Amino acid sequence: MKTYLECIPCFFKQALEAARLAGAGSLTQRRILKKIAGAIEKLTLQKSPPEMGRIIYGTVNRETGKKDPYKKIKEKSNRQALSLYGKLKNKVRRSKDALFTAVELAIAGNIIDYGVKNFLDVTSELKKILNLENRAIKNESNRLFNYAAFKLALAKSGKILYLGDNAGEIVFDRILIEEILRIYPHKKIFYAIKEKPIINDAIMADAVYCGLDKVTEVISSGLDVPGTVLSLCSAKFLKIYKNADMVISKGQGNFEALSGRKKNIFFLFMAKCPVVAREVKCELGDIILCKRP
Amino acid sequence: MKTYLECIPCFFKQALEAARLAGAGSLTQRRILKKIAGAIEKLTLQKSPPEMGRIIYGTVNRETGKKDPYKKIKEKSNRQALSLYGKLKNKVRRSKDALFTAVELAIAGNIIDYGVKNFLDVTSELKKILNLENRAIKNESNRLFNYAAFKLALAKSGKILYLGDNAGEIVFDRILIEEILRIYPHKKIFYAIKEKPIINDAIMADAVYCGLDKVTEVISSGLDVPGTVLSLCSAKFLKIYKNADMVISKGQGNFEALSGRKKNIFFLFMAKCPVVAREVKCELGDIILCKRP
Repeated sequence: MKTYLECIPCFFKQALEAARLAGAGSLTQRRILKKIAGAIEKLTLQKSPPEMGRIIYGTVNRETGKKDPYKKIKEKSNRQALSLYGKLKNKVRRSKDALFTAVELAIAGNIIDYGVKNFLDVTSELKKILNLENRAIKNESNRLFNYAAFKLALAKSGKILYLGDNAGEIVFDRILIEEILRIYPHKKIFYAIKEKPIINDAIMADAVYCGLDKVTEVISSGLDVPGTVLSLCSAKFLKIYKNADMVISKGQGNFEALSGRKKNIFFLFMAKCPVVAREVKCELGDIILCKRP
Repeated sequence: MKTYLECIPCFFKQALEAARLAGAGSLTQRRILKKIAGAIEKLTLQKSPPEMGRIIYGTVNRETGKKDPYKKIKEKSNRQALSLYGKLKNKVRRSKDALFTAVELAIAGNIIDYGVKNFLDVTSELKKILNLENRAIKNESNRLFNYAAFKLALAKSGKILYLGDNAGEIVFDRILIEEILRIYPHKKIFYAIKEKPIINDAIMADAVYCGLDKVTEVISSGLDVPGTVLSLCSAKFLKIYKNADMVISKGQGNFEALSGRKKNIFFLFMAKCPVVAREVKCELGDIILCKRP
């Protein structure tokens, strides 16, 4: 997906929020916004939003001298998500269609906002999300939520590449991967995380903390980009991507980076911004599980 | 009021909306955003938001070759507001405190969105606004809505300068001015409009169309700025400003330009943006009628 002009105001908003989160004083905040303005002035709009995200958050990190301003947030998200793990596993175990429930949870993990919440809030938010989703995805075979096709693709694929998104959320991905491997013990699943910190995207430390490495093979995409931009990925990752029979692409950033690719990619995310919703021809907040939405 | 960093994303949003309204194609839209980015890069933030507005909307007009892209919108607003004039006058005439009702209407004129509405919508919106306001301004002597002080200042002032804001809205201002002159026939009221088109701000043509010139002396501020930035006003206007015993400053733009001035200014506007609401220490959507909020 290309960057639209409507993304530009949002880039400045994101830069300002990230700068403040990184503890930047007002002079540094100003310097950052001016640098972003400089980058926008030279912008060709050929870059996808995640590539722009790399410039924005990279600028914030450089100017504030903080390599990983979201570290504490990521750690908190991981802790909160892990504390739910037992209950979530029980939910999957007790459900009629365990795979479907695991998919639901993977979506919930993409939606939930760990940032400012305590444990009780996370639990009640999760409940709310799952109820909402149950409504949103009741019809299992609509254009944007095609569980049947997803299930079929899973059955057919030997090598699966699962592209992770945020810290915390990866615990929910772990549950879906565990469920896929319970049904198909001989499938090979690669779980891809980012090489370097970018926003709250999961890196290797998060995957290890959340036990993903005990469940499946965790690989790095080689990226410091909030979305799997293939032209910037490591050669090692690209080989795995090329050989994968199916890609499960989690989160909006990965959709923005990979939409339009001719590959067996199932996108799994919530449309969180109006530009993406327009691109996908859905409502803001809609849940997507399909190829080429 | 100075420009805050939070204003910067909003400048881009405004530029994009204005460019589209002016019928700019996507290449022109892009060129405009890049020019704004260039201006932001050089920005000192010493300028007030209206001065930035002048740069933004001036850029849009130059790049699209349209000197007055809001002309049709302004004309529609004038027509719609004028079509309500008789009913509004009756409302004032029948009310217990005619001046208070006229103040209410002047506020409603600042809030109402003529842009996309038909006559029925405008009427029902007005009703809603006035009901809302009746609630919001019930307490006549709170910090931000001080009708008593406004009434007292009116009684004491011989020369009053009334700073207009948008087209359409000026019909509501006319009703307030007529009411003031009914109570105090010997007061001198100057009604100031902008010299050149800027957004949907009223210019002389709007004032004449809406009959303001028949009610009082209409003067130009000499500005092409969406707020009365004194350093840019004409010498003729500044003399009237200096000699005025009281200034009635209508709309958020005039507040942004004049807040902090040591002058007997009553600001009359709705806090329509979060930055202004924070500056004034009020809620978004609050109605202000006071000196130095």
